This record gives sequence, structure tokens and C-alpha cells, in this order.
Amino acid sequence: MTNQPTAAIIIIGNEILSGRTQDTNIAYIGKKLAAIGVDLLEVRVIPDEEDRIINTVNDVRCSYTYVLTTGGIGATHDDITAASIAKAFDRPFVENQEALKILEEHYNDTLWHHGSQVSFNESRRRMAMMPKGVTLIENPVSKAPAFQIENVFVLAGMPSVMQGMLEYVLPRLETGKPFYYNTVTSNVLEGTIAEKLTEIQNQYPEVSIGSYPFYKVPDIGTSLVIRGQDKDIIIQATEDIIAMVKSFGGIPTIERQI
Amino acid sequence: MTNQPTAAIIIIGNEILSGRTQDTNIAYIGKKLAAIGVDLLEVRVIPDEEDRIINTVNDVRCSYTYVLTTGGIGATHDDITAASIAKAFDRPFVENQEALKILEEHYNDTLWHHGSQVSFNESRRRMAMMPKGVTLIENPVSKAPAFQIENVFVLAGMPSVMQGMLEYVLPRLETGKPFYYNTVTSNVLEGTIAEKLTEIQNQYPEVSIGSYPFYKVPDIGTSLVIRGQDKDIIIQATEDIIAMVKSFGGIPTIERQI
Repeated sequence: MTNQPTAAIIIIGNEILSGRTQDTNIAYIGKKLAAIGVDLLEVRVIPDEEDRIINTVNDVRCSYTYVLTTGGIGATHDDITAASIAKAFDRPFVENQEALKILEEHYNDTLWHHGSQVSFNESRRRMAMMPKGVTLIENPVSKAPAFQIENVFVLAGMPSVMQGMLEYVLPRLETGKPFYYNTVTSNVLEGTIAEKLTEIQNQYPEVSIGSYPFYKVPDIGTSLVIRGQDKDIIIQATEDIIAMVKSFGGIPTIERQI
Repeated sequence: MTNQPTAAIIIIGNEILSGRTQDTNIAYIGKKLAAIGVDLLEVRVIPDEEDRIINTVNDVRCSYTYVLTTGGIGATHDDITAASIAKAFDRPFVENQEALKILEEHYNDTLWHHGSQVSFNESRRRMAMMPKGVTLIENPVSKAPAFQIENVFVLAGMPSVMQGMLEYVLPRLETGKPFYYNTVTSNVLEGTIAEKLTEIQNQYPEVSIGSYPFYKVPDIGTSLVIRGQDKDIIIQATEDIIAMVKSFGGIPTIERQI
């Protein structure tokens, strides 16, 4: 994992912390980054509060190759991410002319599904406000663009919109060796195989073997996840784990990525 | 929110960062804490790595009334949370006699569903290893207990087990005024109501109004969440928002907690 690019995600959203909304952005971004060899090493979920956004962004942006934020870039009073990011980078908060043009065209040209024109009012115009000197990120879903400032990608929180934007972010990232994993699930209990599993882990230091028990009587057992960047070693370790599980009388089912 | 107890969650788990596992613990714990008036202000997701666990625990435990961690307290090589927490608190890592007794009784008394006895081997005994001087947290699901060390509650990662343990944690917490919220969802676009919404927010500084657009053509609109601790004010703000949405031709559906 030497010279592997790294990343952190900052989820900005009271609705996640209150439990009202089930986050799905972490898993989605995590998978996409793993597939291009960017190592996601930290996620922070914080409220929509200026000081917290500023401090968190400044806390993590120097520690990772990339930072992705989600949430708080809409048209309403609670959308304070863009302004807070400007403060974090000590840059003026200005009307981005390129973003303004995209928004103008969108709202003036679009006949909405209910047949009426939607006015390009002051609140919508506010979505063009960004830190000075950013690079836009296209929004293929609802048009209002996101932006990149240095190594920080400031994305929408709505999953469908975030996912659309992410397709424009990924090609901008330096990639590493992708991560792959196989999963061996069986009815053997974690405590039964723990010792043998340690031996296999020690034999294959290039992979990380995770053990995830499940316990919903009578459905109890363990999922073993073999994750790494070298396909041959993952395949070999998977075979050893299958044999080990069988040696304890387990009936393994295998989910292979490779 | 003066003197309201606060909390942070630390999710310890490579499987969350890799995107393999969809986290559900944040939303579950978030809801439970909100219901007893504990303000969840931060979540961090970190890998199963000793240094990161130590640094993160020490980074957050002084900033919040409570810290809850999930993950990494099982019987296998990748379960390093308990040992790392001992280092974070600079305490010896010892065999907890009370935990040992619980584990011994469980493994010696239990005839498992496949009819065989499960041996209390060294790996399972390892689950009794904890920092010195902790208070145990009962595990009503799979028995192996968790523990509390000062203001830090170290819980399992498996959702069913974590949820069972949490019922023993909540009564130990100092409570605050509970949080409630109502949700007003309609087909009116966020940008249309943004200005009026700001006026309502300014009128009711005691509640926080969140605006969450959805955009899956033709299903587009906005959910407005009115959250706070004073029921009367939430009810009043909800009525104002319903009237405002209707004034824009919107057809609101209301989901009330109060």
C-alpha cells in the first residue's frame, strides 16, 4: 500500500446525526474509491454548523490525498457548506460566473413536469455562490454544480445527485492498485476458528482478513472477508480459508470478487 | 440546549470504509440518543488499526459527555479495540474475572442449536481481556459482555448485539430534554420556498428547520424537517410551514412525531 492515494469523507448533515436519515453515501463512495485503489481511511459525520465545518475540513485536508464532503450545498438557509469552505480556505465567497450560467440556462429553459416555468429567483441564484477560484463539478441530475477546491470535493448530500457528481470526480483522482475481496461465509462460529484464522492471517500479511460473526439464532456463523490488492494472494488465502472452514465441519458459501 | 449532554460515536471497522457493509448503527444510536435528549454531535469511522483507535478515542473523549464505540471486540485477530482502548487510557490490559465467569458459564452450559457443546477455548477466553477497572455492559444476545471505561462505552459492531447492549447503556446516561421532529413533505421545489422558509426559521430560532429536496423525476419536491425540544413551538412552526407550502400550490403530507 506504499504511495497509495488516501481519502477521507466528511458527511455534513444534522439529519444523519439525528437518525432521521439512514446514510448510504459512505458505503457508495467507499466501494467506488476501493475500485480505483484510493484508500478511504476516515469518515466524519458533523452537524450543519459553520465552526464545525471549518475545523473539520482544515483538520483532515492536510492528512489525506483527497477529501470528499457531502451535504449542505442547496438553496435554503441551512445550506452553509460552500460559505464555510470558503472560510476554511480563507478565500472570498463569490458568485461563480460559470455556475451562474449553468443555473440560468437550466431554470430559463426548463419546462417542469407540472408544465410551469420555474423562476430563477434569488435563492436559486445563491447556488452559484462559491469560494473564489474553484473548479466546477457537473451535476447530471439536477444541474446545480458542485465544486473542487484544491484536494477537497464539495458534493451534494442527496444520494442520486451525489452519485451523479461522483462520476465526474473519479476521473480527476490519482489512482492506486484497486482493492478486491472474497467472502467465505459458513455456519462455523468465530471462536472455533479464531486460532487457525490467525495462523492464516500471519501466513498472508499482504491481505487483511476480517471476521464478521452473525448471530440470529438459529442462523449463526461467521463471514470471513479476505481483502487486498494482489489477486493471486487473495485467491490463495481464500482457498486456505475454505479448507480450514471445512476442517471444522463447516459448509462454506463463497462470494468471489476475483 | 444549555447543559444538554453530548455524545460522539466511533465506528471501528474496515468493512464500513471499504463499502462492503452498509452501516446502520449510526442511525439506530442517533435516534435512541435524541429520544433521551443526548445531543449526538460527531461520528467518526476509522479502520481497525491500533494507533487510529488510540488517537481517535483520546481526541474525542474530552470533548463530549459520552463516547460510544462499535466494533472490534470479538474473538479473532482483527478484534483489537479492547487492547487499544486500554492503551488509550494507559491502563493494564487484564482478564476481567466477572466477564470470564459469564463466558465460562455460557460456553459450558450451552447446548448449541446443532446439538454439540462448544468448547471454551483460548480464543473465546480472550473476550474477557479488558482494560483494568471497567464496568461491564450486558450482552443479551450472544453473552460476551462489553464494557464502560469512564465516559466511553465500548460496544460490539454487529447491529443486533449492539442494539441489545445499548439498552443497558441508555439507563446509565444523564438525560436532557428530548428532541422531536415533524416532517412536511410536498411537491414544491426547494428553490421556490427558500426565501419564505428563511423567514419562518428566523421567526422560530428555537427549532432547526432542515430542507431536504428529492429529485427522482417525476417525483421531485422537498421534505422540511422541524426539529427541536419545545413541543409547542414545533407544532406552531409546523403549522406555519404547512400554510406556506400551500400558498405555493403545494400539497403537503405531514409526518408528526408530536
